[in-house]
Amino acid sequence: MPSALPCFDDVLDAAARIAPHARLTPVLTSTTLDALSGARLFFKGEHLQRSGAFKFRGACNAVWALDEHQAAAGVVTHSSGNHGAALALAARSRGIACHVVVPEGAVEAKLASIRRYGALVHRCAPTIAARETLCAQVQAQTGATLVHPYTDFHVIAGQGTAALELLAAAGPLDAVVTPIGGGGLASGTALSVRANAAQAALWCAEPEGAADAARSLAAGHLQLDFIPDTRCDGLRGTLGAPNFELLRRHGARVGTVSDAGTLAAMRLLWQVTKQTVEPSSAIALALVLARPRDFAGKRVGIVLSGGNVDLDALPWMAA
Amino acid sequence: MPSALPCFDDVLDAAARIAPHARLTPVLTSTTLDALSGARLFFKGEHLQRSGAFKFRGACNAVWALDEHQAAAGVVTHSSGNHGAALALAARSRGIACHVVVPEGAVEAKLASIRRYGALVHRCAPTIAARETLCAQVQAQTGATLVHPYTDFHVIAGQGTAALELLAAAGPLDAVVTPIGGGGLASGTALSVRANAAQAALWCAEPEGAADAARSLAAGHLQLDFIPDTRCDGLRGTLGAPNFELLRRHGARVGTVSDAGTLAAMRLLWQVTKQTVEPSSAIALALVLARPRDFAGKRVGIVLSGGNVDLDALPWMAA
Repeated sequence: MPSALPCFDDVLDAAARIAPHARLTPVLTSTTLDALSGARLFFKGEHLQRSGAFKFRGACNAVWALDEHQAAAGVVTHSSGNHGAALALAARSRGIACHVVVPEGAVEAKLASIRRYGALVHRCAPTIAARETLCAQVQAQTGATLVHPYTDFHVIAGQGTAALELLAAAGPLDAVVTPIGGGGLASGTALSVRANAAQAALWCAEPEGAADAARSLAAGHLQLDFIPDTRCDGLRGTLGAPNFELLRRHGARVGTVSDAGTLAAMRLLWQVTKQTVEPSSAIALALVLARPRDFAGKRVGIVLSGGNVDLDALPWMAA
Repeated sequence: MPSALPCFDDVLDAAARIAPHARLTPVLTSTTLDALSGARLFFKGEHLQRSGAFKFRGACNAVWALDEHQAAAGVVTHSSGNHGAALALAARSRGIACHVVVPEGAVEAKLASIRRYGALVHRCAPTIAARETLCAQVQAQTGATLVHPYTDFHVIAGQGTAALELLAAAGPLDAVVTPIGGGGLASGTALSVRANAAQAALWCAEPEGAADAARSLAAGHLQLDFIPDTRCDGLRGTLGAPNFELLRRHGARVGTVSDAGTLAAMRLLWQVTKQTVEPSSAIALALVLARPRDFAGKRVGIVLSGGNVDLDALPWMAA
């Protein structure tokens, strides 16, 4: 496993590696949302990716980058949901074992997918210490390779392929916006955007209740001491060190968004585009709507990162 | 206004007339739903049509078929929702007035669309007599042309364009399934299917609680005496006379579906395809899932008719 940071060439390698397995997702547009935002919006539909999220790209790249000997022992990860399902599906595409350590409190729809794709689920307490301990145990017992949800070299490179396709389909963009949790998607996107649209603004949308990326980039070093408080269940993780470094180098900006703004944008996306995206996706549109001074009049690419929602617990139905 | 029944040439005319205004909607596929049904399914995504439903096709064809003098006086219709919104948008595309008579109890999301597209809304009691009386009043006062939601010649021809595109995109099909309410979509589809895939089975999916088409085709004449009892708010209307005649001539079959089956299929479509379709669309998939003997092993086209749901009143959240 390379220890250096991935670069754009690694994104190109990933694109070739995952091409037989991943979907080339569509880029969606909406005159209604263009009118509302005052911008020209291009939505990369990663909720339509296999496993229902962009996470399949990175997981698939990591699984198929293993040599035969590594692959034979399988893979292991910890995940609140989308990465676990993605790794399970990627492992199945290669016919190898997959172990997923899942914290209590994960979204049921995501847990069901992990099981449906054939992974072995190991439950743990919802703390970083608990999941890392259990992951290490599984590694020791099985020899499985750990595929971290967002700091893994091949995961970062794989996530960069979504923006690569977005740029190819949408033409020149003035800005690209992704959600940010651990930073896998954001840092992979940074590689593709800087290599193909050097002048474009690189924005990360982060929940106010989990604003470690905003604080870390402002401080110039990682600031991870916080307790996440957000409905964006995919964005509660802490920013990874390689992700931070890539975002810092490539001049990414972070904008924070209230959950109210995110949930309003999610509802708007469902109503107008008829696409069921999850809160962690809608936050990127919410950022654009909240900052007309930064986005109005521009061509803006938005990565809709996933669509795995629990239909029994939609946010606007909550008491 | 021609009084004869439309034929396939009228569908071709409609296709040319609406091409500058309507969307060529995508045909969606799903390996998960293929596995569940045992069939190869091709979903025509009319929930992605302008106004969020196939209804825009027929309304647009009717509006643009008017001569200048007729157009100047505007159009009027009665509708529980999708046709009203579609006619409003079609009228706006030509810059003419639109009046919509809406029964009490219509879905709020659809009513909001009618108003957003600039139509004048006239509320009436939820009976056929009340809406026809009010429609006649508006006609007398304004000179507007009545565009009936499903018996109108140009509406039927316009609705046939969805199946035309479906057949072109999906290749040879063994069966085509549409929902049936008044029969505009089903009878227009019959024209396109018989002209392009003469051997294909033509299926209509109808709610058990509004099974007038099933009873009418079985009896050989219209059987309209019923009180609709179904969650499929778009399928409560009674089968139209020209629609009945076209379906009878072209050998359409009707399968009835319980609301429970329809709502399960709707949830499945949301979860698997990430598309927000309304119950009146999901009924077609429900029919295919309920009748493996008729559909398994076949290439089946399904028209997903619309996606205008009230997100505050999703069926699986109901008490």
